[in-house]
Amino acid sequence: MSDVKKVVLAYSGGLDTSVILKWLQETYGCEVVTFTADLGQGEELEPARRKAEMLGIKPENIYVDDLREEFVRDFVFPMFRANAVYEGEYLLGTSIARPLIAKRQIEIARETGADAVCHGATGKGNDQVRFELGYYALEPGIKVIAPWREWDLNSRTKLLDFAEKHQIPIAKDNRGEAPFSVDANLLHISAEGKVLEDPWETAPEYVHTRTTAPEDAPDQPTRVTIDFERGDPVAIDGQKLSPADLLAKLNQLAGDNGIGRLDIVENRFVGMKSRGVYETPGGTILLAAHRAMESITLDREAAHLKDELMPRYAKLIYNGFWWAPEREMLQALIDKSQEHVTGQVRLKLYKGNVIVEGRRSPESLYSQEHVTFEEDTVYDQRDAEGFIKLNALRLRLSGRQK
Amino acid sequence: MSDVKKVVLAYSGGLDTSVILKWLQETYGCEVVTFTADLGQGEELEPARRKAEMLGIKPENIYVDDLREEFVRDFVFPMFRANAVYEGEYLLGTSIARPLIAKRQIEIARETGADAVCHGATGKGNDQVRFELGYYALEPGIKVIAPWREWDLNSRTKLLDFAEKHQIPIAKDNRGEAPFSVDANLLHISAEGKVLEDPWETAPEYVHTRTTAPEDAPDQPTRVTIDFERGDPVAIDGQKLSPADLLAKLNQLAGDNGIGRLDIVENRFVGMKSRGVYETPGGTILLAAHRAMESITLDREAAHLKDELMPRYAKLIYNGFWWAPEREMLQALIDKSQEHVTGQVRLKLYKGNVIVEGRRSPESLYSQEHVTFEEDTVYDQRDAEGFIKLNALRLRLSGRQK
Amino acid sequence: MSDVKKVVLAYSGGLDTSVILKWLQETYGCEVVTFTADLGQGEELEPARRKAEMLGIKPENIYVDDLREEFVRDFVFPMFRANAVYEGEYLLGTSIARPLIAKRQIEIARETGADAVCHGATGKGNDQVRFELGYYALEPGIKVIAPWREWDLNSRTKLLDFAEKHQIPIAKDNRGEAPFSVDANLLHISAEGKVLEDPWETAPEYVHTRTTAPEDAPDQPTRVTIDFERGDPVAIDGQKLSPADLLAKLNQLAGDNGIGRLDIVENRFVGMKSRGVYETPGGTILLAAHRAMESITLDREAAHLKDELMPRYAKLIYNGFWWAPEREMLQALIDKSQEHVTGQVRLKLYKGNVIVEGRRSPESLYSQEHVTFEEDTVYDQRDAEGFIKLNALRLRLSGRQK
Amino acid sequence: MSDVKKVVLAYSGGLDTSVILKWLQETYGCEVVTFTADLGQGEELEPARRKAEMLGIKPENIYVDDLREEFVRDFVFPMFRANAVYEGEYLLGTSIARPLIAKRQIEIARETGADAVCHGATGKGNDQVRFELGYYALEPGIKVIAPWREWDLNSRTKLLDFAEKHQIPIAKDNRGEAPFSVDANLLHISAEGKVLEDPWETAPEYVHTRTTAPEDAPDQPTRVTIDFERGDPVAIDGQKLSPADLLAKLNQLAGDNGIGRLDIVENRFVGMKSRGVYETPGGTILLAAHRAMESITLDREAAHLKDELMPRYAKLIYNGFWWAPEREMLQALIDKSQEHVTGQVRLKLYKGNVIVEGRRSPESLYSQEHVTFEEDTVYDQRDAEGFIKLNALRLRLSGRQK
Repeated sequence: MSDVKKVVLAYSGGLDTSVILKWLQETYGCEVVTFTADLGQGEELEPARRKAEMLGIKPENIYVDDLREEFVRDFVFPMFRANAVYEGEYLLGTSIARPLIAKRQIEIARETGADAVCHGATGKGNDQVRFELGYYALEPGIKVIAPWREWDLNSRTKLLDFAEKHQIPIAKDNRGEAPFSVDANLLHISAEGKVLEDPWETAPEYVHTRTTAPEDAPDQPTRVTIDFERGDPVAIDGQKLSPADLLAKLNQLAGDNGIGRLDIVENRFVGMKSRGVYETPGGTILLAAHRAMESITLDREAAHLKDELMPRYAKLIYNGFWWAPEREMLQALIDKSQEHVTGQVRLKLYKGNVIVEGRRSPESLYSQEHVTFEEDTVYDQRDAEGFIKLNALRLRLSGRQK
Repeated sequence: MSDVKKVVLAYSGGLDTSVILKWLQETYGCEVVTFTADLGQGEELEPARRKAEMLGIKPENIYVDDLREEFVRDFVFPMFRANAVYEGEYLLGTSIARPLIAKRQIEIARETGADAVCHGATGKGNDQVRFELGYYALEPGIKVIAPWREWDLNSRTKLLDFAEKHQIPIAKDNRGEAPFSVDANLLHISAEGKVLEDPWETAPEYVHTRTTAPEDAPDQPTRVTIDFERGDPVAIDGQKLSPADLLAKLNQLAGDNGIGRLDIVENRFVGMKSRGVYETPGGTILLAAHRAMESITLDREAAHLKDELMPRYAKLIYNGFWWAPEREMLQALIDKSQEHVTGQVRLKLYKGNVIVEGRRSPESLYSQEHVTFEEDTVYDQRDAEGFIKLNALRLRLSGRQK
Repeated sequence: MSDVKKVVLAYSGGLDTSVILKWLQETYGCEVVTFTADLGQGEELEPARRKAEMLGIKPENIYVDDLREEFVRDFVFPMFRANAVYEGEYLLGTSIARPLIAKRQIEIARETGADAVCHGATGKGNDQVRFELGYYALEPGIKVIAPWREWDLNSRTKLLDFAEKHQIPIAKDNRGEAPFSVDANLLHISAEGKVLEDPWETAPEYVHTRTTAPEDAPDQPTRVTIDFERGDPVAIDGQKLSPADLLAKLNQLAGDNGIGRLDIVENRFVGMKSRGVYETPGGTILLAAHRAMESITLDREAAHLKDELMPRYAKLIYNGFWWAPEREMLQALIDKSQEHVTGQVRLKLYKGNVIVEGRRSPESLYSQEHVTFEEDTVYDQRDAEGFIKLNALRLRLSGRQK
Repeated sequence: MSDVKKVVLAYSGGLDTSVILKWLQETYGCEVVTFTADLGQGEELEPARRKAEMLGIKPENIYVDDLREEFVRDFVFPMFRANAVYEGEYLLGTSIARPLIAKRQIEIARETGADAVCHGATGKGNDQVRFELGYYALEPGIKVIAPWREWDLNSRTKLLDFAEKHQIPIAKDNRGEAPFSVDANLLHISAEGKVLEDPWETAPEYVHTRTTAPEDAPDQPTRVTIDFERGDPVAIDGQKLSPADLLAKLNQLAGDNGIGRLDIVENRFVGMKSRGVYETPGGTILLAAHRAMESITLDREAAHLKDELMPRYAKLIYNGFWWAPEREMLQALIDKSQEHVTGQVRLKLYKGNVIVEGRRSPESLYSQEHVTFEEDTVYDQRDAEGFIKLNALRLRLSGRQK
């Protein structure tokens, strides 16, 4: 066990991270700094502060931050500029929150002179990787503690025993085992494990908490207009909103209309497949709207280059490489493409469907005079012959080869 | 005007290709062979035969072929193995039919000793490119005639005048101009032009002909199971079906449930953007089901390699390069990946939504013992530490550089 | 023939562009502005000015510019940051000069109020595409004149007749046909056509003009040190040099040592294969040196991402898409990667060989303590086990599938 | 220490693997099977057999195999079909031998009923990964022993002490430490470590053993012709040779002429940079010749697709993923492209230079009639106008946007 003086713990206030808190004090004999962030997960933060105090953390060692605006502005929106989707479907809701938590933990470690950081992710998942790659990239010499890989509290019973022994309060609903595991922030909520482990079984309706079932959504569609500026959404139905408020508003609209559910088997970075049920209501609208906005403002080859690089970009975020040079290089490419992605998209929301009805832009590349079936002067149809002939030349030579 | 002796015309039996037929005879003074194919567009073929006869084509020069099974088996299914989607959304319904038509026209040219082929696509669209790249790749020395780029019948009035002058029958509904232009086959139906030209305007409901509006679809969901073998669907609800029958059945199920509509602005190969409204009911189900089947049977990196190459593969098909060496190379890669994509997918269809509820396979790579939260022996959580440490090493060195 | 008032001609002062000059006046009845650029091709520019005057061009319509520094700084160096090589071998010497010429022609068109531009490239090559894509991208409404595709002077005899008829002086060595065609600038000189047309025949020694044959180069090696700052070379043997002077110096060193010859068959954008003999002496050193500099300063995945995108970037330049959005996006990605590519490279030059002997950097990522065979503390070999185990996990699951 | 009954050891007969042999017996108390392969490393195998006997291995447990032909035919040649080069320069000489060794070890494990395999690679390098990924992919349940990561013989002194204590003979030149570490097979020989650790220092001449220094190579060039069939070399100067004989012959020719040296800093899969000095004489010729063969027989877009995927393919081999599904998929794509890569290449070898002088093929795509400057009928220069105009259309629209 290496020597640790002070550790910054990503602390939710829940049972698990409270046990970790005590375990750190006991195992490492070190000072613990707690860091609790509001990323829009929908929980009060003050109880976490009080619980940290109750567990003996000094007030100056308790950090509680509202990071919602930074989260959406500097992480969610840049990612959506790329239309990032992992394995064709997953909108990366959990993945994109981790780099921000890691960054803030390292900042606090610097502020408090801590020599270690600690997270509560297990040894089987992706989150441990995302946290730790962030820590190491931002502070190469930092000491990382991952209790779930180190301790022997590897069953529910042992964990509860430890909690009782150390007088950590146990909420009633923490007594039994949760039927699945959850992660939440302003972009999404995820469920995995236990009742979801058999991928042939239908996910029970009760795992969904942010979206109405399509069957129960209103029978009348909702229409909404989103304004974009340089690739980012800035207004809904004409009303300018801050990034976090805008995403919250989209979550409301989408959730009400049964939009944003996903049930997939995905490939983890650590090697196995896992089944997850995700709800990303606002993000689902945003992806469709952003694509529609790009469809009239982005050059063809710019769009195709983005499409070809997107899976790689999404994989970097999924695997935890947000702070890696190659992600920053791809971001530079993506951001360069968004200079003219400005305008409006009109959408219809109805029982799980996001339907694009219209798009317009002061910087549109769509040229009605070029597509019209009417006679025209801007496009000479005879040009197509030369275009085809030269594109065909190599095929004709190859055809002779066969 | 170069010398042409015999030309194979892609002939629908409609007004436009009938005018082309006459124009070819008159302009080139050549023998005309008509080729009419059933690709599942939903029209009788015999009227086309009778019309060709009426326009003076010799019986031995009239070809009418049912290509539905070949179309689905050798073109649609191979494309779906790749999960091909153009520009994030378009399922390539028109694009994938062109290479087969080109191939059959060249075969007929060889059988009949024709030295030219002719199509009825305009000079502004993608289809002229798709047809002609196919012709040239398969028969490098063929002569290609594209009347819309050559003649002066470039208005509705001139076309009708020509038809009347040559006693070509004009159906009542051909008198006025169609409010939009249509292409159809067993995979999809498309609409573009005229009433759809302003991309800010909502597409009218009447352009949709294969799908019920989500609002009008049944209030009760439909459930369906699809069986796959080596990447291709082979049965629905346990019933083995031929490729064309299977796709027709999926079209029925999807159309009834409001599934498969799309309204996009896309980038044409010839350089401009155009707005299209597509219905691909069965294909929309198939894409979701195939992805779900792959999710448990395909290795992670195999899947990611496919995802990264998919936009390029889709672009090749969109641009008309089906018969190009690079498409064949990509197909070899894709087909190699499908050896174990075998099993079953359960889906729920409901008012425009295709919801995956379950997937299973005798060749599944999903390992419940690896993901379970229970204690286990197959996976040592401590391995994750080394995995992270070595993945982080380069980031730590880069971190020091900054 | 469309109406043209004033045209900016890329004018070399040679016979061909002098004929074009007269042909423009005669055919279009328009005012001609000549533009002659020094890109380091090694010819005096004043004779071109005098010849233009002699052919009746008004002094204010004669532009003669020394663009060598701009050429190397804004075109050659950015391209070398990408280690751009077309088809594995060609250093793009001709391709990279065209965008600058196009840009300057458009600027002059704006300054002089010209409505058209004209170049002397033939209809079979890549250069016509490179010029014209540049013109259209920078000035969408410009009129482009490409005499070789338009006129009937399509034989040497007709050209000479036209010249004589219009009293254009014909140099003695222009009477006969050149045994091959040449393009030159500060980066390279190319030869193609005629004596080089059979790709099985050895290129004659006399086509080479910038490099000593390796056999005739000095028996003693030359050693040289190059300093880089943020991806660009800035000094040779400790002496700071401007971009153009630095490249000229490298040309001298490489040419003397028989470095930089290439004989290839390449694929043109217009569809056919062609054989070229290139000399890129300084560029060949620069590529090797830049790669060596990156080898210790660039992160692994940053380098690999660059390597994977390089062929696409090189193809864009080869095909003439310098001014396209996708080239600019890739450049943003590449430039982002060069922030720490600073340091020194030591090279040995010997009879055609560029041999890297050493590289060092204040921002080096090379860590001797990590690679040493000695016992160490910074790297725990046991981490490798976990790293391998988790990388192998998916392979083991796949292995069971087989 | 897990239970092991019988282990297959990759055994060179040298000091290190002899120590491992004894250590295995002592530590695991298990039966040891030795496997010694001739991959063309240039050492006698019989001494290894005798040494194994001397160390108490039963005759039926000693495997000595000549794998040279299989190595070149099934591993080297398929890799060269891809023109595989890691990080722009390294020809993967060490990497490509590992998958074959792993495969044969697993085969022997099955034949002998062994439950474990063992290799002598250290915990800092790539080879441990390459061996073990191979083992796990081919036999998911195999037990892997990596002594260098497990034991405490982590210094030269301890190793020698162990050897003496167990009566393992120590050759005189094993007493002192080698000035660098070596790996060799028929494709290449590598040197790294110790005297090479400072990347600013010139590599000493004495690390090179397979190639004459360019300075000492003959003053007269050597000319050679290589025949290819479907992407693989089959004859030299008209003489048909088996794969291993052909590569050996090329090694001779290249080594004599100072060809195939490389001094680089590369990025290891385990995270750090390392400096290596490589000699790949025959491979260097082969790469140049294969590219030249492809230059006239491979379609442009086929070649470009290969070029774009090559870095990824090379990385897979470097990182040890030969037996992974994604490598097999890429191989399918590459092999598909080689169907017409048949013909002859003429080369000049001179003091480190491989100079392509000519290439010809019965399946050539090079069309002299298309490139000639003479008037022609196969190519209409006016087609270029339409080709350029439609390629420019999107750029003109984008130009207006700016």
